[in-house]
Amino acid sequence: MNKLPVAVIGAGYWGPNLIRNFTSCPLTEVVAVCDANKARLEQIGRANPHAKMVSSIDELLGLPKPPVAVAIATPVSTHFPIAKRCLEAGLHVMVEKPLAASGTEAQALVKLAEKMGRVLMVDHTYLFSNPVRMIKKIVDSGDLGELYYVDSVRINLGLFQHDINVIWDLAPHDLSIVDYVLGLEARSISAWGCSHANEDIEDIAYVNVDYGDRMLANFHVNWLSPVKMRQMIFAGSKKSLIFSEMNSSEPIKVYDRGINIGASSEEERQKLLVSYRSGDGWIPHVDAGEPLQAAVRHFAECIRDGTVPISDGNLGLRVVKQLEAATRSIRAQGGRVILANGKNGNGQDARAVRSEQLPAGV
Amino acid sequence: MNKLPVAVIGAGYWGPNLIRNFTSCPLTEVVAVCDANKARLEQIGRANPHAKMVSSIDELLGLPKPPVAVAIATPVSTHFPIAKRCLEAGLHVMVEKPLAASGTEAQALVKLAEKMGRVLMVDHTYLFSNPVRMIKKIVDSGDLGELYYVDSVRINLGLFQHDINVIWDLAPHDLSIVDYVLGLEARSISAWGCSHANEDIEDIAYVNVDYGDRMLANFHVNWLSPVKMRQMIFAGSKKSLIFSEMNSSEPIKVYDRGINIGASSEEERQKLLVSYRSGDGWIPHVDAGEPLQAAVRHFAECIRDGTVPISDGNLGLRVVKQLEAATRSIRAQGGRVILANGKNGNGQDARAVRSEQLPAGV
Amino acid sequence: MNKLPVAVIGAGYWGPNLIRNFTSCPLTEVVAVCDANKARLEQIGRANPHAKMVSSIDELLGLPKPPVAVAIATPVSTHFPIAKRCLEAGLHVMVEKPLAASGTEAQALVKLAEKMGRVLMVDHTYLFSNPVRMIKKIVDSGDLGELYYVDSVRINLGLFQHDINVIWDLAPHDLSIVDYVLGLEARSISAWGCSHANEDIEDIAYVNVDYGDRMLANFHVNWLSPVKMRQMIFAGSKKSLIFSEMNSSEPIKVYDRGINIGASSEEERQKLLVSYRSGDGWIPHVDAGEPLQAAVRHFAECIRDGTVPISDGNLGLRVVKQLEAATRSIRAQGGRVILANGKNGNGQDARAVRSEQLPAGV
Amino acid sequence: MNKLPVAVIGAGYWGPNLIRNFTSCPLTEVVAVCDANKARLEQIGRANPHAKMVSSIDELLGLPKPPVAVAIATPVSTHFPIAKRCLEAGLHVMVEKPLAASGTEAQALVKLAEKMGRVLMVDHTYLFSNPVRMIKKIVDSGDLGELYYVDSVRINLGLFQHDINVIWDLAPHDLSIVDYVLGLEARSISAWGCSHANEDIEDIAYVNVDYGDRMLANFHVNWLSPVKMRQMIFAGSKKSLIFSEMNSSEPIKVYDRGINIGASSEEERQKLLVSYRSGDGWIPHVDAGEPLQAAVRHFAECIRDGTVPISDGNLGLRVVKQLEAATRSIRAQGGRVILANGKNGNGQDARAVRSEQLPAGV
Repeated sequence: MNKLPVAVIGAGYWGPNLIRNFTSCPLTEVVAVCDANKARLEQIGRANPHAKMVSSIDELLGLPKPPVAVAIATPVSTHFPIAKRCLEAGLHVMVEKPLAASGTEAQALVKLAEKMGRVLMVDHTYLFSNPVRMIKKIVDSGDLGELYYVDSVRINLGLFQHDINVIWDLAPHDLSIVDYVLGLEARSISAWGCSHANEDIEDIAYVNVDYGDRMLANFHVNWLSPVKMRQMIFAGSKKSLIFSEMNSSEPIKVYDRGINIGASSEEERQKLLVSYRSGDGWIPHVDAGEPLQAAVRHFAECIRDGTVPISDGNLGLRVVKQLEAATRSIRAQGGRVILANGKNGNGQDARAVRSEQLPAGV
Repeated sequence: MNKLPVAVIGAGYWGPNLIRNFTSCPLTEVVAVCDANKARLEQIGRANPHAKMVSSIDELLGLPKPPVAVAIATPVSTHFPIAKRCLEAGLHVMVEKPLAASGTEAQALVKLAEKMGRVLMVDHTYLFSNPVRMIKKIVDSGDLGELYYVDSVRINLGLFQHDINVIWDLAPHDLSIVDYVLGLEARSISAWGCSHANEDIEDIAYVNVDYGDRMLANFHVNWLSPVKMRQMIFAGSKKSLIFSEMNSSEPIKVYDRGINIGASSEEERQKLLVSYRSGDGWIPHVDAGEPLQAAVRHFAECIRDGTVPISDGNLGLRVVKQLEAATRSIRAQGGRVILANGKNGNGQDARAVRSEQLPAGV
Repeated sequence: MNKLPVAVIGAGYWGPNLIRNFTSCPLTEVVAVCDANKARLEQIGRANPHAKMVSSIDELLGLPKPPVAVAIATPVSTHFPIAKRCLEAGLHVMVEKPLAASGTEAQALVKLAEKMGRVLMVDHTYLFSNPVRMIKKIVDSGDLGELYYVDSVRINLGLFQHDINVIWDLAPHDLSIVDYVLGLEARSISAWGCSHANEDIEDIAYVNVDYGDRMLANFHVNWLSPVKMRQMIFAGSKKSLIFSEMNSSEPIKVYDRGINIGASSEEERQKLLVSYRSGDGWIPHVDAGEPLQAAVRHFAECIRDGTVPISDGNLGLRVVKQLEAATRSIRAQGGRVILANGKNGNGQDARAVRSEQLPAGV
Repeated sequence: MNKLPVAVIGAGYWGPNLIRNFTSCPLTEVVAVCDANKARLEQIGRANPHAKMVSSIDELLGLPKPPVAVAIATPVSTHFPIAKRCLEAGLHVMVEKPLAASGTEAQALVKLAEKMGRVLMVDHTYLFSNPVRMIKKIVDSGDLGELYYVDSVRINLGLFQHDINVIWDLAPHDLSIVDYVLGLEARSISAWGCSHANEDIEDIAYVNVDYGDRMLANFHVNWLSPVKMRQMIFAGSKKSLIFSEMNSSEPIKVYDRGINIGASSEEERQKLLVSYRSGDGWIPHVDAGEPLQAAVRHFAECIRDGTVPISDGNLGLRVVKQLEAATRSIRAQGGRVILANGKNGNGQDARAVRSEQLPAGV
């Protein structure tokens, strides 16, 4: 079988992981690596003698045997021009999360990929991890009942970014997981945040997404925490699930705990009878496995089979629009930003809630 | 030495704890217990043969040897009339948290106590716990540097209340701790919340308090969590502190971890140099001890010595005004509510931020 | 219904817990408390106005309306004479663990109770706790398969005793749990230990019990640990159970993890095929509840119904014989002590393994 | 600078880690890899194009440019002949732990290396880990006071070995750590163990080492645990240290907790006054870092500088003698085995304690 020839663009922090995984994947081979940093390229080249080392996109596209697909691991602000160039050249494209620096850019890439008939996938790696796959399976089974809320804590002493804030850095994980697992349309977003290290870049933020029907999701993202925490709660009317990512041997627990709501006999007092249910817990076994290996294989399979990636451009676009709305909400002091038409939205008609001061009577 | 004669009003969930602690405190004795429920009263009476059991405030105030002080542990909506009556009768008053059902009520009680020259204390029990006292000592020492944020998670499968929402139930703990420990004036509050069990009563909420100077506090309060969590982070520019209440043997850890911010040499790029600091941790020993015992003794000492309780009516008033603002913010879809004049405010001029929809350009 | 009149002998550390629980149990009432310490007695008397306070066994037995049953919470060395006296007087007797200071004493009490036709129960409180009851239920169901080993860690910075070592203080818990849950006969015991605070009293020890059929139990008991740990593993051929006592909300977890042993095809190499099984976990819900309340009720029910307590004198005797053997093994430098006839043994024929030095060839 | 040419012998489970670390170490380069498995060799060769792939020691030693040093990662039973051969050929040798399959073999290798003037190092990797280095630093500082005991738990669902039992597999870690950190001479060893999966190979064991002066060490090693645990306690008269290996962000905690022993005034009762001390804890920051990288660099530096490795042949020999004694003790039903002359012993005069049955009087 012929292996899919892939190029990796950007050999900084994440690029080597892509190179390693495309190399070990039986469906793909790395034929080229592109980076402007010559020293970095030379170092990568020694460990990958079979791949061409190139220092520009021009050079990459001009290779005698150019790649069929590229994986882009460059700074977010460059995702759009590089991905556009590669799609126009007829290549399949995988982009690091988030897809682009704005909803407008992301939308344009989605349309371009559609027009060119090429695969556009965003590397929302979590969606390919076994714990998240297990969570989706459990949610899809209906065992949790009606979802009440999702709460996520994703905090640590973080790698400060100079071009994006903590929301753009960490929230794509949560937003993509919730989009994939729940398949719900976000209706509006509100966010609070604060910057301490750098005047303009929030390093701690709380993002709140309303999905309608009393279903809320809240994400705490933070680069300034003395301890690392990674935890998501999916609370349902029947059962609730906790994803404790840092407990690698038991990442998921499902609890038969919650409330039972009964109709009250004393209707004149309009009281609901709420009783508690504290049942057993379940720790589903989750296989080990490297998520990025599953992601690169999925990319190769989608190209081979002509199928749509689970983290396709549309999912990536929805995430970017929510990131954009969250940041806008912070700048509007937490005012709620309406996401006009959710999953199928086009980014043009998102509406923010104006922030004004009211007299006390409101 | 004569013991201070105390009456406990309300013998439901919390009342017996007050009776037990006023009994074991060497400065006080329980001379009467007041509750409308006769069966409950009879049961309490058997275990407290020396105390009078009375079923109304009238009866209590009409006793031949009336108490000098009362502790009120009745539903929140009754705090105001009962406390007012007792203060007017010249008694010293301790009220369960929160002080009253509205800022207006709370303000009136504060003024009345002042006019009558009586002690008005709110039973914010946490302020008398050894961990919170240790936290205050550490914060006051300056070891944490400038405070960056406070983050609190206070969630469990909770006892649903029929008259108050989860904010009024759980957030008084956080608000009183932050008020006491930091001594900062809250400038504005925003909150998100949702109700699932009961149409009108929020069972999950996120409350965000702005203290100015880039200092934020965020409180997650929740009656619908499958697991119980109690954790507060106090993050500072020098060190950060974690209060893990459920780890009773090591409730506090202080970490020398954070960021160092240096002036950049490349000023044209406006970049700050952020580096990481990952130093040692410290686990201060915290003595065991029942907080409520310390609280009732403090109440007795303030009466004896004519001093002001650390959780006096003014602190209780500030907490109530913040609870009020948080609930109002939820009803206004998260709009920010301005707390006019912080610690010295009077509740009349709090202003909410109007929520409207904006065109996308904002 | 008439309540069973009970006297509590010994009002020190544990006695008040017995008084409280016999008082709140609907089947019993405390008619007398006996302690040589007058000041202590007076203090107890104030809180228990309906009970007689007596300062000697003579006085207790001479009361106009003597108790029908006694609970003995005095130092271990006094268990035998006091229990003997009470049994001879025709009373039912509950004794704190361990039953007596030697196998001979314990045996004599068992015989005496039998002769007098009275209930003799040892307060091995753990056997009445909901987690241990749940463990017994799971083991009895056969879900764990054949038991491979039990491992227990019971360590903390302990209350040093002046009359008994750490084995006599802490190991009764483990020995009674294993006796009750597994129902196996111990064949031999070996122990290592060391004393640091006091020349003659071991403060750290490891006790190893052989039950035959490749089933071992090992108990680490320790008064000198900087951290408190309470954990038992019950490992079986099918599943394994972990009892983490300090995790009060999830004390028990059952794991479908272990090994599968297959017959080897390469018989000439005598290799067994061992494969791993890493399946789901299960967290059975365990109700809250005070074990001592269940214990005193069980005592009352056994007296009322003429039934045998689950922690009867015979179980208490077996535990004492094992404690005796463990201590003897430590003094013999870890030599294995044979328990002659297990559950039905009489303590006379336990045999120790002599410790000598051998040449290297052994 | 010339890099030290190294060959790795054995390319199974651990070999690739050695290859990777000798490759990334700036002092060394991998010039050859030796393994009998041709397919394995070919796979390794593709990733290491600059190294020769050879399938026998003969071939390795006959290379035109043979290595100056070898690292041996083959089954334990082959350590002796291979290391002997390489030392005789004048090579420096690093051997995986344990050094050899018997004290006699280990002793012979130590003597041979000495005679040949070559470095013989055992890859007790833990000694090169930052947590163990920090532990040694703290112990050496005297902060812990007099050592009371070491307790280690090293259990998981383990990789069953067909040639060695769980003691030979896991206890080398504990024995080497204690030898290195404490520098004490073991006087005698006792062990209990049991085999379940395979008639002759213990899969669970408890090893107890006596160091004299009331200093005991106890190691629980186990391939049959449903959960993975890695914890060591170093308890001292002043402070105690806990090494929780699985808590990678806070592996070490030092507690100022313990007992204070005072002279008793009631000398006639021979009572010691024991009081408790429960002070602060300290979490020293421990840098991240790959221990094996530090180990291979140490090997290269010892060769370059003519210095003795911290895990030299003598340390490896002491470990092997203790492993041998522990296994012998299990076969003698836990009888204590005397290690004749500890650190300088020669393995010939270790003496076991005979196990016999005694009458009860002992």
